[in-house]
Amino acid sequence: MENRALLQSWQEVSTRVERELERLLALPSAAAGVQGLSVLNEAMRYTALGGGKRFRAFLAVAACQAAGGDAYEALPFACALEMIHAYSLIHDDLPAMDNDDWRRGRPSNHKVFGEAMAILAGDALLTDAFALLAGTALRRSGEECRRWLRALEELAVAAGSVGMVGGQACDIWASGAGEGSTPPAVDERTLREIHTRKTGALIRAAVRGGALIGGADEERLALLTRYAEALGLAYQISDDLLDAAARSEPASYPALLGLEGSRRRLLEVAEEARGAAGKLGQAGDLLQELVTFIVERRS
Amino acid sequence: MENRALLQSWQEVSTRVERELERLLALPSAAAGVQGLSVLNEAMRYTALGGGKRFRAFLAVAACQAAGGDAYEALPFACALEMIHAYSLIHDDLPAMDNDDWRRGRPSNHKVFGEAMAILAGDALLTDAFALLAGTALRRSGEECRRWLRALEELAVAAGSVGMVGGQACDIWASGAGEGSTPPAVDERTLREIHTRKTGALIRAAVRGGALIGGADEERLALLTRYAEALGLAYQISDDLLDAAARSEPASYPALLGLEGSRRRLLEVAEEARGAAGKLGQAGDLLQELVTFIVERRS
Repeated sequence: MENRALLQSWQEVSTRVERELERLLALPSAAAGVQGLSVLNEAMRYTALGGGKRFRAFLAVAACQAAGGDAYEALPFACALEMIHAYSLIHDDLPAMDNDDWRRGRPSNHKVFGEAMAILAGDALLTDAFALLAGTALRRSGEECRRWLRALEELAVAAGSVGMVGGQACDIWASGAGEGSTPPAVDERTLREIHTRKTGALIRAAVRGGALIGGADEERLALLTRYAEALGLAYQISDDLLDAAARSEPASYPALLGLEGSRRRLLEVAEEARGAAGKLGQAGDLLQELVTFIVERRS
Repeated sequence: MENRALLQSWQEVSTRVERELERLLALPSAAAGVQGLSVLNEAMRYTALGGGKRFRAFLAVAACQAAGGDAYEALPFACALEMIHAYSLIHDDLPAMDNDDWRRGRPSNHKVFGEAMAILAGDALLTDAFALLAGTALRRSGEECRRWLRALEELAVAAGSVGMVGGQACDIWASGAGEGSTPPAVDERTLREIHTRKTGALIRAAVRGGALIGGADEERLALLTRYAEALGLAYQISDDLLDAAARSEPASYPALLGLEGSRRRLLEVAEEARGAAGKLGQAGDLLQELVTFIVERRS
């Protein structure tokens, strides 16, 4: 029952985000008739639209609501998150990085548009996300404008050199691709370092940014931050466990803790996340349900 | 004489920007002992520090002063511009793009750090530039905070899909690298389209951002915008003319208008830029001198 409410809410957010991204990523009038720009636009839309669970967007909207705000006030922030997530997928799939030819059952961006255009499509999604956030902040005044600016800063720090990009650099380094030599041994500290930054930072920024936009006071913000950090870790461990069924990754929890150990760790961090959300009262119900969903997911 | 004042002022800005970038790009304490992060940091520093004329930074500082502000109030903005400029150089040099092994007399970023780390270093410089601007804006209040936010938005739009990245996409498209087939014929509209976006947009944002931070009223902002657009074009034509001595580029002014035609066009846009700066009164003196410098430069 509760689970149905969660999925319904998630589905609704996903639909609204999709529609808004469709609008935001329409070919700008300034680009009409300029072929290089329309190809770039097509490449951006290819990855940013029509796929993905919109997990980060949902988190931002749910956190905004849990903080006491109107859920969809965070919609532009949710879209910026998805644009940045899409950019990271495009760049991660490049031959020089993870060299993935497939993404979500379709050829990856560079297989369709070529490497050069894929690099540029990623760059453009990242940059345009900040233009979107700055424009949104400027259309607000006073304290509200500042909250948006804080959300923008959260996201930039989380996506940058000590956040998501840094995590990818650690991953590249750990897998030896950065130097073409034998990968160094991965211990739990390194693994945690990779995950906290590579996927954790953006999940944390989704929750904190949504909460800031929703007008969270410092106490609520602290609870939601604890929630986000535990949820991000749970998300990663469950991801690793799902992957472990298919193939063995050296930098993963099952490789390090074994399947049983990973499942135990997953339950621990899930409890931590539920505990933090529980302290938010009824406003945290959806966030609690989300933890259960992440723990129990099968895909 | 005037020229000496210009060069002295430029040199001073360049030194201060270099020192500030050195501070901003120091290895963050959070990254100490994490090898992936320190390699990423090294790759960012390799291109962002120790080279370059700091032309965009100088423009921002000069425009801030011409708008009536304290010149160095624009210092963080000038640094963000140089970080974004550095990111664009790293990505442009990649094998999938212009495939340049050398930059400023040194091996290009990917030749030293590998393609994966070079892509990430570019991504990180771009993202961290927005974190820097948002943080700077948040440390200011009221109207001043809003001016910084406007400058941030200017820069994001100028660097994004209809600005610098878009210009690079047009260039890739025009040179046929996007599809690996015969390049289409480049007419003046296409050439202008490439240049206006690829180099013009960031130069325009440097001037407008600096002017906004300096507290320009709308009239001054309009004059400085006219100045920036003409200067950007002059910069590009003079660049093309310098290149023409060395090698022939299909997408260039000399290829399209001939050497004489290009020089005539250069003098026209230089006059336009000087005219706009002249209307600023004494505050525009340095900006006028800069036009002459661009027209007469030999390297």
